[in-house]
Amino acid sequence: MRGTVLYGPGDVRFEERADPRILRPTDAVIRTVVTCVCGSDLWAYRGTDPVTGPTPMGHEYVGIVEEVGSEVTNVKPGQFVIGSFATSDNTCPHCRAGYQSSCVHREFMSTCQAEYVRIPNAHGTLVATDDLPAEEFLPSLLALSDVMGTGWWAAKAAEVEPGSTAVVVGDGAVGLCGVIAAKELGAERIIAMSRHESRQKLAVAFGATDVVAERGADGIARIKDLTDGVGADSVLECVGTKESMQQAIASTRPGGNVGFVGVPHDVAVDGQELFFSHVGLRGGPAPVRAYLPDLIDRVLTGRINPGKVFDLTLPLDQVAEGYKAMDERRAVKTLLTP
Amino acid sequence: MRGTVLYGPGDVRFEERADPRILRPTDAVIRTVVTCVCGSDLWAYRGTDPVTGPTPMGHEYVGIVEEVGSEVTNVKPGQFVIGSFATSDNTCPHCRAGYQSSCVHREFMSTCQAEYVRIPNAHGTLVATDDLPAEEFLPSLLALSDVMGTGWWAAKAAEVEPGSTAVVVGDGAVGLCGVIAAKELGAERIIAMSRHESRQKLAVAFGATDVVAERGADGIARIKDLTDGVGADSVLECVGTKESMQQAIASTRPGGNVGFVGVPHDVAVDGQELFFSHVGLRGGPAPVRAYLPDLIDRVLTGRINPGKVFDLTLPLDQVAEGYKAMDERRAVKTLLTP
Repeated sequence: MRGTVLYGPGDVRFEERADPRILRPTDAVIRTVVTCVCGSDLWAYRGTDPVTGPTPMGHEYVGIVEEVGSEVTNVKPGQFVIGSFATSDNTCPHCRAGYQSSCVHREFMSTCQAEYVRIPNAHGTLVATDDLPAEEFLPSLLALSDVMGTGWWAAKAAEVEPGSTAVVVGDGAVGLCGVIAAKELGAERIIAMSRHESRQKLAVAFGATDVVAERGADGIARIKDLTDGVGADSVLECVGTKESMQQAIASTRPGGNVGFVGVPHDVAVDGQELFFSHVGLRGGPAPVRAYLPDLIDRVLTGRINPGKVFDLTLPLDQVAEGYKAMDERRAVKTLLTP
Repeated sequence: MRGTVLYGPGDVRFEERADPRILRPTDAVIRTVVTCVCGSDLWAYRGTDPVTGPTPMGHEYVGIVEEVGSEVTNVKPGQFVIGSFATSDNTCPHCRAGYQSSCVHREFMSTCQAEYVRIPNAHGTLVATDDLPAEEFLPSLLALSDVMGTGWWAAKAAEVEPGSTAVVVGDGAVGLCGVIAAKELGAERIIAMSRHESRQKLAVAFGATDVVAERGADGIARIKDLTDGVGADSVLECVGTKESMQQAIASTRPGGNVGFVGVPHDVAVDGQELFFSHVGLRGGPAPVRAYLPDLIDRVLTGRINPGKVFDLTLPLDQVAEGYKAMDERRAVKTLLTP
């Protein structure tokens, strides 16, 4: 089969690779239906995260089950399945507490921009749909495996509640999905922080009630203005830089919460600043598995349409162009079809 | 009147000072019944926090109202009152959200180791008891104005729930009060981290079910051992150093919470570490005002006895010895009687 391999900064190749096989009784192998490029893939693509050798890429997937190990009884060959970028047994204490992405058997997916994929912990990771979904739903179902699940988690970690005011820092795919999540969880006011017109429009289409283009101190001042000087109840930090984290904390009211879901790069939170802010902080890799049944239902009933974050679709063998378009911000997110 | 002034590291004097007066219509002046020395006073006493000139000291107090400003209608001269170390109007949006210690009119108390004290925002800060309390209750009522209120807040911020496992990092007065709070909030298992035998005993008397003497990596390993490898649901961080914060986060299970209430000194939380821990973090100065009515009731009904943290009582004019004893760890906390 063929799959995507990153050889170094900017050097993405689609090439012949070994067919994935069942290695453990809890594995499954799926045939990829659609996959995509993630904003977080760009950390390595840009050289911010080191690339030490040829590295298979991709952690988002929906597919048709080809083969399952002897202990996988939740899905069977021929079924359409969705899973999280973080695999889990779904039975350990962390899983039972709703933190499947901290599963004691967790393995992060990393080979999904390929024609076939081995899924470790398939028994606790994959969720099958009742039927083969219509093609129109594929982008949104794919989005659940990471960006929509992560946006949902950002809103949960930020404790968005009905009637509350939520701010979303970051207008990438996760931030845009965070707007969807805030709306679904009942936020009355949703302020999207975005400087890009096309993304602002999508944020508004997803439910944002206000858009703030300013950043840093000006951005914080605008949020304070919009909230009568109080600050937001919930802030979804969907970037992962020092600046975005500071902006998130400073935009939150005392007693409010920041959910941070962009993997922090060079971020150190000052203890005394956090102390006097009275802001609660929780982040981490999204426990997507916990949300999949509910989110699949929201997609298939047409309630949410996170697939709109894909603004470029390419054949899988043109994956290199998919990275390039996102790196140059010509695309929010690239969908890949094998 | 006479009051306590810190002139420099180790230089505490009890000397003649101007009588406090009503400066604003929301002020009150009280005659101190008992006051005390706080662990946090030692930051300045030891020179860790800079002392730029003669500095009046003390932020914990109970007293008899002498005089009130024209807008103070909640208490009247002759009443016995308790208030928080952080004053508040109790009506601003932050107060209404339960975060009185972030009140927009907040002033921190700082002159309480004295015979008389001016209380700013008295209208939103002071709570009177129905009657003059019996002498035996004075130490516990005094403890409410900071350490017991702060221990309570640590447990609330760490989201202690009935049946949960709580760890308390720090065996100072706040940590010991944190044990009381965890027990009152229903924690089934309370692990006190303490190396000092007398404090261990008090922790057990207050409700600790286990004591861990180890610190750092060894301490974390012991907590993991005691929780079947999972980590604690709630950790009360009652110290405020880099080491105690790391220990707290690493002892918490994914999805658990750290409440941090020691003012952080030179603490920076690594973003990526916090991210992958899945731990929620909330700290700040305790909103004591929110808890006072409930805690006064628990004291006067004999349900809790936080006054036991005072293991040294001195006349107020011997305040310097009170500091010295705590600095040298001969005392957990010094009660001062005018």
